[in-house]
Amino acid sequence: MNQERIKELLENIRDGKVSVDRALERLRNLPFEDIGVAKLDHHRSLRTGYPEVVYCEGKSIEQIGSIAKVYVERRVNMLLTRAGDEVFRIVRQIEPGAEYNSEARCIWKTYDPLPECERPVVVVAAGTSDIGVAEEACVTAGTMGCRVEKQYDIGIAGIHRLLGVSEIFEKAGAIVVVAGMEGALASVVGGLTSRPVIAVPTSVGYGSAFGGLAALLGMLNTCAPGVAVMNIDNGFGAGYFAAVVCRDSCADK
Amino acid sequence: MNQERIKELLENIRDGKVSVDRALERLRNLPFEDIGVAKLDHHRSLRTGYPEVVYCEGKSIEQIGSIAKVYVERRVNMLLTRAGDEVFRIVRQIEPGAEYNSEARCIWKTYDPLPECERPVVVVAAGTSDIGVAEEACVTAGTMGCRVEKQYDIGIAGIHRLLGVSEIFEKAGAIVVVAGMEGALASVVGGLTSRPVIAVPTSVGYGSAFGGLAALLGMLNTCAPGVAVMNIDNGFGAGYFAAVVCRDSCADK
Amino acid sequence: MNQERIKELLENIRDGKVSVDRALERLRNLPFEDIGVAKLDHHRSLRTGYPEVVYCEGKSIEQIGSIAKVYVERRVNMLLTRAGDEVFRIVRQIEPGAEYNSEARCIWKTYDPLPECERPVVVVAAGTSDIGVAEEACVTAGTMGCRVEKQYDIGIAGIHRLLGVSEIFEKAGAIVVVAGMEGALASVVGGLTSRPVIAVPTSVGYGSAFGGLAALLGMLNTCAPGVAVMNIDNGFGAGYFAAVVCRDSCADK
Amino acid sequence: MNQERIKELLENIRDGKVSVDRALERLRNLPFEDIGVAKLDHHRSLRTGYPEVVYCEGKSIEQIGSIAKVYVERRVNMLLTRAGDEVFRIVRQIEPGAEYNSEARCIWKTYDPLPECERPVVVVAAGTSDIGVAEEACVTAGTMGCRVEKQYDIGIAGIHRLLGVSEIFEKAGAIVVVAGMEGALASVVGGLTSRPVIAVPTSVGYGSAFGGLAALLGMLNTCAPGVAVMNIDNGFGAGYFAAVVCRDSCADK
Amino acid sequence: MNQERIKELLENIRDGKVSVDRALERLRNLPFEDIGVAKLDHHRSLRTGYPEVVYCEGKSIEQIGSIAKVYVERRVNMLLTRAGDEVFRIVRQIEPGAEYNSEARCIWKTYDPLPECERPVVVVAAGTSDIGVAEEACVTAGTMGCRVEKQYDIGIAGIHRLLGVSEIFEKAGAIVVVAGMEGALASVVGGLTSRPVIAVPTSVGYGSAFGGLAALLGMLNTCAPGVAVMNIDNGFGAGYFAAVVCRDSCADK
Amino acid sequence: MNQERIKELLENIRDGKVSVDRALERLRNLPFEDIGVAKLDHHRSLRTGYPEVVYCEGKSIEQIGSIAKVYVERRVNMLLTRAGDEVFRIVRQIEPGAEYNSEARCIWKTYDPLPECERPVVVVAAGTSDIGVAEEACVTAGTMGCRVEKQYDIGIAGIHRLLGVSEIFEKAGAIVVVAGMEGALASVVGGLTSRPVIAVPTSVGYGSAFGGLAALLGMLNTCAPGVAVMNIDNGFGAGYFAAVVCRDSCADK
Amino acid sequence: MNQERIKELLENIRDGKVSVDRALERLRNLPFEDIGVAKLDHHRSLRTGYPEVVYCEGKSIEQIGSIAKVYVERRVNMLLTRAGDEVFRIVRQIEPGAEYNSEARCIWKTYDPLPECERPVVVVAAGTSDIGVAEEACVTAGTMGCRVEKQYDIGIAGIHRLLGVSEIFEKAGAIVVVAGMEGALASVVGGLTSRPVIAVPTSVGYGSAFGGLAALLGMLNTCAPGVAVMNIDNGFGAGYFAAVVCRDSCADK
Amino acid sequence: MNQERIKELLENIRDGKVSVDRALERLRNLPFEDIGVAKLDHHRSLRTGYPEVVYCEGKSIEQIGSIAKVYVERRVNMLLTRAGDEVFRIVRQIEPGAEYNSEARCIWKTYDPLPECERPVVVVAAGTSDIGVAEEACVTAGTMGCRVEKQYDIGIAGIHRLLGVSEIFEKAGAIVVVAGMEGALASVVGGLTSRPVIAVPTSVGYGSAFGGLAALLGMLNTCAPGVAVMNIDNGFGAGYFAAVVCRDSCADK
Repeated sequence: MNQERIKELLENIRDGKVSVDRALERLRNLPFEDIGVAKLDHHRSLRTGYPEVVYCEGKSIEQIGSIAKVYVERRVNMLLTRAGDEVFRIVRQIEPGAEYNSEARCIWKTYDPLPECERPVVVVAAGTSDIGVAEEACVTAGTMGCRVEKQYDIGIAGIHRLLGVSEIFEKAGAIVVVAGMEGALASVVGGLTSRPVIAVPTSVGYGSAFGGLAALLGMLNTCAPGVAVMNIDNGFGAGYFAAVVCRDSCADK
Repeated sequence: MNQERIKELLENIRDGKVSVDRALERLRNLPFEDIGVAKLDHHRSLRTGYPEVVYCEGKSIEQIGSIAKVYVERRVNMLLTRAGDEVFRIVRQIEPGAEYNSEARCIWKTYDPLPECERPVVVVAAGTSDIGVAEEACVTAGTMGCRVEKQYDIGIAGIHRLLGVSEIFEKAGAIVVVAGMEGALASVVGGLTSRPVIAVPTSVGYGSAFGGLAALLGMLNTCAPGVAVMNIDNGFGAGYFAAVVCRDSCADK
Repeated sequence: MNQERIKELLENIRDGKVSVDRALERLRNLPFEDIGVAKLDHHRSLRTGYPEVVYCEGKSIEQIGSIAKVYVERRVNMLLTRAGDEVFRIVRQIEPGAEYNSEARCIWKTYDPLPECERPVVVVAAGTSDIGVAEEACVTAGTMGCRVEKQYDIGIAGIHRLLGVSEIFEKAGAIVVVAGMEGALASVVGGLTSRPVIAVPTSVGYGSAFGGLAALLGMLNTCAPGVAVMNIDNGFGAGYFAAVVCRDSCADK
Repeated sequence: MNQERIKELLENIRDGKVSVDRALERLRNLPFEDIGVAKLDHHRSLRTGYPEVVYCEGKSIEQIGSIAKVYVERRVNMLLTRAGDEVFRIVRQIEPGAEYNSEARCIWKTYDPLPECERPVVVVAAGTSDIGVAEEACVTAGTMGCRVEKQYDIGIAGIHRLLGVSEIFEKAGAIVVVAGMEGALASVVGGLTSRPVIAVPTSVGYGSAFGGLAALLGMLNTCAPGVAVMNIDNGFGAGYFAAVVCRDSCADK
Repeated sequence: MNQERIKELLENIRDGKVSVDRALERLRNLPFEDIGVAKLDHHRSLRTGYPEVVYCEGKSIEQIGSIAKVYVERRVNMLLTRAGDEVFRIVRQIEPGAEYNSEARCIWKTYDPLPECERPVVVVAAGTSDIGVAEEACVTAGTMGCRVEKQYDIGIAGIHRLLGVSEIFEKAGAIVVVAGMEGALASVVGGLTSRPVIAVPTSVGYGSAFGGLAALLGMLNTCAPGVAVMNIDNGFGAGYFAAVVCRDSCADK
Repeated sequence: MNQERIKELLENIRDGKVSVDRALERLRNLPFEDIGVAKLDHHRSLRTGYPEVVYCEGKSIEQIGSIAKVYVERRVNMLLTRAGDEVFRIVRQIEPGAEYNSEARCIWKTYDPLPECERPVVVVAAGTSDIGVAEEACVTAGTMGCRVEKQYDIGIAGIHRLLGVSEIFEKAGAIVVVAGMEGALASVVGGLTSRPVIAVPTSVGYGSAFGGLAALLGMLNTCAPGVAVMNIDNGFGAGYFAAVVCRDSCADK
Repeated sequence: MNQERIKELLENIRDGKVSVDRALERLRNLPFEDIGVAKLDHHRSLRTGYPEVVYCEGKSIEQIGSIAKVYVERRVNMLLTRAGDEVFRIVRQIEPGAEYNSEARCIWKTYDPLPECERPVVVVAAGTSDIGVAEEACVTAGTMGCRVEKQYDIGIAGIHRLLGVSEIFEKAGAIVVVAGMEGALASVVGGLTSRPVIAVPTSVGYGSAFGGLAALLGMLNTCAPGVAVMNIDNGFGAGYFAAVVCRDSCADK
Repeated sequence: MNQERIKELLENIRDGKVSVDRALERLRNLPFEDIGVAKLDHHRSLRTGYPEVVYCEGKSIEQIGSIAKVYVERRVNMLLTRAGDEVFRIVRQIEPGAEYNSEARCIWKTYDPLPECERPVVVVAAGTSDIGVAEEACVTAGTMGCRVEKQYDIGIAGIHRLLGVSEIFEKAGAIVVVAGMEGALASVVGGLTSRPVIAVPTSVGYGSAFGGLAALLGMLNTCAPGVAVMNIDNGFGAGYFAAVVCRDSCADK
């Protein structure tokens, strides 16, 4: 529609119906999106190949269903996070090929996969209770074309196990460290590697863990360089950031 | 410069050197500001007549001086907040007509005054220690063309005095209430008037006042409708908001 | 009753039964409300035409019902906020013409509508989850005689869409910005317009959003002037404040 | 029992069976409660006549029942706070004369009433949602022999109503002010009276009320002298403190 | 002035110049203070005999001097808190009989002393560093006619000393407990006595004492009944509240 | 396996197949755990004899069951904390001799008991609601071979009872103090004894107890030396720490 | 003195001057310390041999001097913490043999040393800036007869160095871990040893370290068992607690 | 030394003086660093070529000097952060070629530069007061071989300027966004680009900015994906992380 308006304006210039100065004036006042903002968005989507992401918490099943329908129709890669069983039931009706990871609470469908990265994204989780958040990171990085290596239940209380896998870190494109309680695992991993570490505090813990605040503050104040921090329980954000960084680190980017 | 580029493009269309489709493509990719963003900013400044504001805290005397010089040269109305004596000394050298209110810590020069509002902005301060913040609000509203009526030292511990001036509230274009400690004055004024109240918590107090947090929370949780809140000690913001609202409320806006 | 007492006193003066000094003494000690406080309240209600508001949270169905009954009998405009289906069932029995917006959780009945404002109140919501709070603002402003324009799902992650609607802002009587998470939308809107912005943080988000605290602090610390802040999730307060300001900004106020 | 042991020791001294030095040695090592601690407690209980108080939250029905049984058997005045219907069912079986206030969530039985105070404890509540806490204060003060005058729904948004009852304050032995949200009512009442005010913040409110924190900080930072503060929702504590102070203020103490 | 206006109105009624209805109308609209608010304030001051209090923090020497001058001229009892040496120098020039307690940072002059109370106000301080706040309480209660008994350096780490003075508590009109760090002293004293305890947290401590927050929370959450709390370091408030309560508890009130 | 690799290397040196320098190079690069980390862990387990601990919160019944199965098969002492009835049902199927304390929410099986300590671990709980946490400490210390003496419902509001049992403290190997609300009990016990006190704040309380924060801050800021603090509700941690310390204090360690 | 009074009473019983019932009455009312409390305190001091401790912050030089004088005269072991150069100058005048550690800000004089412990207290500090607090712990443990082994600048960013010294941990009587920023060192050390770890967060760090809060929360939420926590910067408390525990762990206790 | 011990052991095996089993036993107990930990650290330093970093806050001039001397002697690239003029004076004496950026408060010397990256690190700063932190990021990334492009004073209040430079973002290897107050700039930049954004909140602001907390929470809760967060004012950390990521994104890595 707006495209049409601009085209018409340009045709009028060509046809001498509108002077250049007048056209200049008009262009200046056109709302920005009229100059193809949706297209620009599309362009970016095409260039990156990253999936469209739907954060399901706080949305009704109906809202989610209608959003998914659009993506399925356009065959756009999509990733639904914080999605439970009932969401999956709806999405599967729309797209039977949709995949679901119930621990990660993620649903996804990749129509047009990105070439796989050479280097893996390594996802480390401190305890069993942190696995949900870690899996969200894994699924996210996976839908963005990254190979994921998981190292779970490898907290600092048994630091020897951690040292045993430290060689894996150096080969990683990026490392995601998921930990609750005091979150010290991020510091220890950051001290063992020179690869970029994305730390995700989790709300695992009790008492003065204050819903992940202790881990968050711990990670922000790490004495190891090369550690950046995401919001509490934000596995998606960590997986996304790690995938962006990891793709950069590979020859086939 | 960018203007030139667009003009050239349009002339090329006119002259048949560039096809409409091609021109459309190019326009889409032009950075936004190329379509006259500075002008838009300028337009707004001309339309509102509000002064350019310089927040001096964290800026060096040299930085402030060079900014002020530009405004003085262009004869743009200007207001410098959080400015001490040493800033005034510099500004007075550049513009001898600059005015200074040391309690408000504000310096200003109005080359092109706005027409004065019919209704006043009423500024109420709870205690003697709140006056600095209140004065900042007064100066700000004044430089935006508002008449200001001050009601200081009128805390709720002596609520009768407050009731005595409540008629003034109803005539106000907007009311700024400045209070520290528990900040209850905003609720009381809000309960007495149907005019818009802009509440400014101050860092006045000690102990569990926590630098204005008690007053801030008190004002945010007011049970009186028609009260909106600014940051702690943000007299400028309150004066600015009140002036915008007040001008609207007047016939001569 | 009290009126009677005062009248009697004055008649006694007139009739010489009471000396002026003695009458003076007595008047001084009359409780304030005796001098027509209820009337003053009434007067204000008549003058503003704003609805009587009932905040339903923490009140029993019975309490709400009996309050509503009084307003219905007196045909006073009324607005019930934080009201669910079960409240609506009761109110509809009392006043079949009562309206209900379940997203806003608001019930209202306007017997005596205010003249509609010329300028709209624009309500902007960042995400789908913020719509409940935004709708509360819309309903509130609506019952106060304002025309409302809604711009939902227009967060800063897709800033181009926001720029596309920025012209609407300049025509607004007041703008309400509803946003959770980091609440940055208020700053962006505040930077785009010179109209008054009323920012409402919402409890949407997780982890370090801390129930709306992140958005609240973000909005209070905005670098854009002309932004005032309401309590977390206080859609009613924002709609009320916006309506007061908006009515002022219109010729037909 | 312990009394017996001490008595025996003293008799042995009297009878020359134990030397003074040896007795001295023994007395020094007797556990404190052996010297009649229970009695001292008893003595205090007898002297004050205040009821024994059982805080029921976190206790099982069985535990509460067995504690109540002891008091009933000894005919000791008792007060159970934070008690629901199911607790009342048990207590009524043990003592059919027990009384219950479901709003206050209090159960009590007064076997031996204190003489009633001359001056009342005045309990002021800001809003309908604060009534539960206010009633807890009323019941508590009542079981301690105080006459209670209630002034509910008298928030500062309608300050005229408050001024209308301010004469009642001056006659009070003590005033309890119960308020949530911003808690400003305590400051206003404190500014109107020279009688001692006991302020109780409640967890009523939402968003940045933070479960009563806003009201608590507001009350602690009041600019009115003569206001002391209790924990959030601590109606019992306020009623108790008010009763102690009120009894002192009366001739018949 | 206003008195004059009212008197004139009444005289006009008496003289038949103004009808009763018209006079009624006018009276209703008179600002409240016109009906003798200053007098009312005066009346209260006369009735209580409490000193006028000036909180000096955040006021300039000049402001304090001019306030003091008024009180000295009217021979009104006065108390200046948070006052240093330089304030005392000024006040002494105005009133050579002014007294000064540098630990308490209080200056006062009592022209018209209240009759001394029978029961003392007992002020307990946990540690040496709490003495400044404790002294502020002592001076305040003293200027309000109370006899003060001090028990300093009597923290719970040496609980035996505390038990040794517990008899003093029972004779007190009110007990002020001043403590920093964990503030547990208030709970211990509250557990030992049935007299009203006013707890004052101090900012003494380090680390997680958080400027008195630990002590404040400790005192608010005391498990001992009969303890009310003041703001951090608010010795004045405690002394004032204690004096009000103490006077009530005495025969000569 | 790794052992084998190292052995092979050493045999190659012995047999002259690998030079010393080359072997040195290889050894340097062996991952740490290859040098018997599992064994080291095992060694420690054998040396201390402490049970393996499973924190059940956030783990599925299946996960807990499979962990327990391993320990039962290896006959390793085990302790499951934060375990409810449904966990016990599973564990009892695997090991019918497993014990369960439902107040402590702990399940344990001791195949190879440690010799009992001479000195007891004394566990003091302030109120009835603190008993769950206290029992967790008791069970933990018990499974680590400590005799436990319980002193419950001994809060500071009745300090005489506390003094009566203070002799028990001096005989303790370590003292665990469990308290919610203001947590002052830890300070009082710390002031009465020279034995090490491990303080556990609990989430018992309401309002400004903030889920145990008040007690936590109180305990951290205790003025009594010899008090160390655990996380809120961490009965296990306290029992574990106390047992380690207590065993040290005994002749039979 | 009080001893005398009790003795006299007992002699009067013996001599028949006072009846048993009357004596019983009197004994019950004797203040507690009359039964030899000072002696009890003395006894404890003699039994433990720990120094008397003076916390100098917030005390005047005069106050500290007069306290020190008493200890010097009685030749009581003493330790002054948070003491600067000017305090040392005074103390050296009173006791020329006083020792001073300026990093620890501690002054001490040991007249009567405790026998040295077999096992050391190991004090680990994460960074150079934590050394002041660590030294305070070292001095404190030293004055209580413990041998101290220091391991400084051994943060987790270089975890290999930490592993290199882990054998030292196992020989320790107790381990003090001093760390700021995220405080993860305590978790790592706790994971490496089965000896008791006393963790001291420090106020080292910036931004969201919030004066030691990040480290404090990190340590409280450690996933390693056997770690107890002290207040921020409380090196004294850690040294004291470690020494008590360490003495217990040694044969020569 | 340790190397020698291991070599000796291996030679003994070779020479048949020690059996393989015995050697195995010994190797297992060697402290980890004995197997060349320092070398490993060295290896990493050689591999990455990143400078050794000294955080100067809390270190004495002497300590800093002696650390710098070691690096200068070994000709190791070094970077000193949070360093003022007086530190530079010392370092320049040791290494006259050291460079100094006083706004960044950074000193550095690069003996062995890394090859320059193809893509730049783009550093965006919201306001003038954020420049110090931004410069620290620039210097850090620069010493790690990255080309830096600066975009300062480009806050969201003038969003058009930001849009004008958005093309630069897409070419960046990584983007550092430095902002105080509400920190919304990170969200806006994150919404404009698909490149990785590293957000640094600054302590710039007042009132409820709470030393950078508002900006920190805002950035953590950003609704834009691809944004990771550093500690408040941690320009170094952001520059370091950006450089690691940026090098990965370049062909010449």
